[in-house]
Amino acid sequence: MRVEWINPFVTATCDVFRKTLACELTRCPMTRRDSFCPSHEVSGLIGLTGQAQGMVVVSLGRQTAIRVAEIMLETPQETINADVADAVGEIANMIAGSAKSRLAEYELSVGLPTVICGKNHVIAFPSKSTPVLIPFESNIGPFCLEVSLVEQAAGNPRC
Amino acid sequence: MRVEWINPFVTATCDVFRKTLACELTRCPMTRRDSFCPSHEVSGLIGLTGQAQGMVVVSLGRQTAIRVAEIMLETPQETINADVADAVGEIANMIAGSAKSRLAEYELSVGLPTVICGKNHVIAFPSKSTPVLIPFESNIGPFCLEVSLVEQAAGNPRC
Repeated sequence: MRVEWINPFVTATCDVFRKTLACELTRCPMTRRDSFCPSHEVSGLIGLTGQAQGMVVVSLGRQTAIRVAEIMLETPQETINADVADAVGEIANMIAGSAKSRLAEYELSVGLPTVICGKNHVIAFPSKSTPVLIPFESNIGPFCLEVSLVEQAAGNPRC
Repeated sequence: MRVEWINPFVTATCDVFRKTLACELTRCPMTRRDSFCPSHEVSGLIGLTGQAQGMVVVSLGRQTAIRVAEIMLETPQETINADVADAVGEIANMIAGSAKSRLAEYELSVGLPTVICGKNHVIAFPSKSTPVLIPFESNIGPFCLEVSLVEQAAGNPRC
């Protein structure tokens, strides 16, 4: 993944958490994601297509995901349910949408979010891609943004 | 999801399994997917955008996923590793690509596949969508195709 693509996703994430969840973020050191490491328990995924193709993943712990839904819906949530999944999917959707507008030259389109729930689930990106993992700290708990994006140059994808 | 969208995905799946894995499929009765039911252990996801937005998921048991990679790579696989994840992602990619050509009027674009590994992981689609779950039987084991696709009518999405 090209390094100049990272900041648009970081800025999009900070904006969405600030505006939607009234939550300021601290960005932790980024790592290359090249092993089969487990994600947090709840992951919101959304596909990107256009002049670049990819997947954006927002991965949160159980309590953080529940807190996201509580803030967005203004109602207490007991457990991971359809409302929590919808809220996490909507956060992934907003981050992808905001990053899309910051990367206008790639004419990106945003897919439909999908949410994975499960202890110790592992997200494997294609080995031809070089996804980045950006951990964040927040007052509702730590979470990670993972982005895998591959540019569509004519017959010669750049990662 | 519109009923006329289902057959293109079924035909695409049968074609990909026949041509890539020399594997004939038996389609089992389709169900509406409206509960938090666990998927098989390995799921390949790929986003679709265009005149409709969605996500295609191919969900396979551990041994079926390993067998897919063994057939595609012509080498034995001991466990779920990066090669197996790549093979499952490539199957999802081929199914989405084949369905895209069968739904040309929606000008679909296909994203980058991502593979989820984990016992009892649950895939939650947006509650506004009505995903379909199509189980298949094959000589390398049972698997499921799940598709969630929402048409982009001007300001009025149809599911």
